[in-house]
Amino acid sequence: MSDLPTQVEIAEEGPREGFQIEKAPMPSAEKIALIDALSATGLRHIQVASFVSPKLVPGWADAEAVVAGFTPKSNIHYTALWFNAAGLDRALCFKDRLHLFGSISLAASEAFSIKNLNRDRAGQIEAMRKQTAAHIAAGVPVTRIGLQAAFGCNYAGDVTPARVMAAIADGLAIAMEAGVTIRDLTLADTMGWANPRQIETVVAEVRNRWPELRLALHLHDTRGLGIANAMAGLRMGVARFDAAVGGLGGCPFAGQPGAPGNIATEELALLCTELGIATGIDLEALVEAGRLAERILDRRLPSAVLRGGTLARFRAHAA
Amino acid sequence: MSDLPTQVEIAEEGPREGFQIEKAPMPSAEKIALIDALSATGLRHIQVASFVSPKLVPGWADAEAVVAGFTPKSNIHYTALWFNAAGLDRALCFKDRLHLFGSISLAASEAFSIKNLNRDRAGQIEAMRKQTAAHIAAGVPVTRIGLQAAFGCNYAGDVTPARVMAAIADGLAIAMEAGVTIRDLTLADTMGWANPRQIETVVAEVRNRWPELRLALHLHDTRGLGIANAMAGLRMGVARFDAAVGGLGGCPFAGQPGAPGNIATEELALLCTELGIATGIDLEALVEAGRLAERILDRRLPSAVLRGGTLARFRAHAA
Repeated sequence: MSDLPTQVEIAEEGPREGFQIEKAPMPSAEKIALIDALSATGLRHIQVASFVSPKLVPGWADAEAVVAGFTPKSNIHYTALWFNAAGLDRALCFKDRLHLFGSISLAASEAFSIKNLNRDRAGQIEAMRKQTAAHIAAGVPVTRIGLQAAFGCNYAGDVTPARVMAAIADGLAIAMEAGVTIRDLTLADTMGWANPRQIETVVAEVRNRWPELRLALHLHDTRGLGIANAMAGLRMGVARFDAAVGGLGGCPFAGQPGAPGNIATEELALLCTELGIATGIDLEALVEAGRLAERILDRRLPSAVLRGGTLARFRAHAA
Repeated sequence: MSDLPTQVEIAEEGPREGFQIEKAPMPSAEKIALIDALSATGLRHIQVASFVSPKLVPGWADAEAVVAGFTPKSNIHYTALWFNAAGLDRALCFKDRLHLFGSISLAASEAFSIKNLNRDRAGQIEAMRKQTAAHIAAGVPVTRIGLQAAFGCNYAGDVTPARVMAAIADGLAIAMEAGVTIRDLTLADTMGWANPRQIETVVAEVRNRWPELRLALHLHDTRGLGIANAMAGLRMGVARFDAAVGGLGGCPFAGQPGAPGNIATEELALLCTELGIATGIDLEALVEAGRLAERILDRRLPSAVLRGGTLARFRAHAA
């Protein structure tokens, strides 16, 4: 396991992912409480809100109140998500509190793009051209490509590495045309299709073709392989992961109601800790934040660590 | 991934593991229905009952009724569990229906042995000497060593590979003294302490010292690393795993109420299928058996595949 990174950066997406799929809107104060609890765990990247249409995602109608309400810590990057110029405008109002950067968001499956955004490949490329221009005009750097459905799609089935490479090339062409430099690439297993071998294959091909890109994995645990896939990423030296406390989230448009969402931050952090990989996270504090999320949502979340507890606790007791 | 096996044998322990921890006794007819459903999935090893004290494990007071009641298929090994001469005698009544063999059961953590069985290391060795002799006297072959707490212990903390090797040596000494040949060794992560690197380290050391032993892994998903650990086993060429449909089970004596139990058979089978490893299992039929287990127990089981569904179903729809 010589390629295991010595440290890993976990971007927490629980607040944003978790609240977008809830049927009943949560009080803003509870969202803020969760963000503040996460701020005390050692996480350095927390996605706190989604500036999306309140009609499409009623759970984030209060994005402004939440972003205005949490207590920022100076060493944490708080981020938000948006999909169009209106969302960008809303985010810009909080440039003192949020770490703003733009992503070129594409899907390796055209069928998913159509289902999720009602745009085919060409339509999404055109939308991203416009969005990139809008970011530049607003002075917001565009530094990342985010690739959805990079490992398979509920609507299109298997996604070949060739399709992944083509979609990344699309994104890089948009960036080049706009004169921006992409540093980060996030490969998202949006619907939980990946397996460890596929992770290794796709990561190796991307690395081989674009060695300058910094890779991140956004993994879902839809079929229970999420942590095994993260492990495959770690073996390939991937040092950036998205995750959600408690395993919050899941894609509201992927047609799998009740399926587990993102890999749980505490499971990934526990894996890293046990492998001797630094995350900067206080696992006990993170577990407490997960339990707070369960109290807020009034249901059990998928994270096994919330049930089984950390090993540190047992080690302390045994010692 | 050159050491991945081409086929894997999964021993289903759901019925035995699942019903032992339920508070309210389940009707025998429902246990039998689950066993019969599992018999239709392509599984070739199913542990159907536990011949243990009804006082200690009331959930298996009806072991005789269950074993007498299910419908055996000729190509399936149905097994049962017992811990003493009384249990062996009960099992012997069903030698026409059950595949009977003896295990030398030891723990790599003395603290666990004391908590679980009220015996220290010497006491457990003595008990296994007697049990091995009883098996020989009854004409039941003793072919396996089962090692509990092989990767860590809630009571003793970390378990070193040296402790694992010492416990295996204990087991082999018992076998040699009794004149029996051990073919199989099951390493059990009874309380969910293992991580993928540790799996690789321990498996490599065991293989190095005893290359003649056939290894199996019995993994728990207590902290969400179960399938990543199974993947580590597969990478090491391990081709035998225990698992439980739906993720049933968990150790009733390990002091972690509510923690996930065994790795879910359908998650492991899905992993193997996606890696091109043959299991002989009809995944859709297995998912149906998992849903039956949920109806019987009237609660959601931990298996993500029961929520997310198989990929074959989506592939068929996409094609």
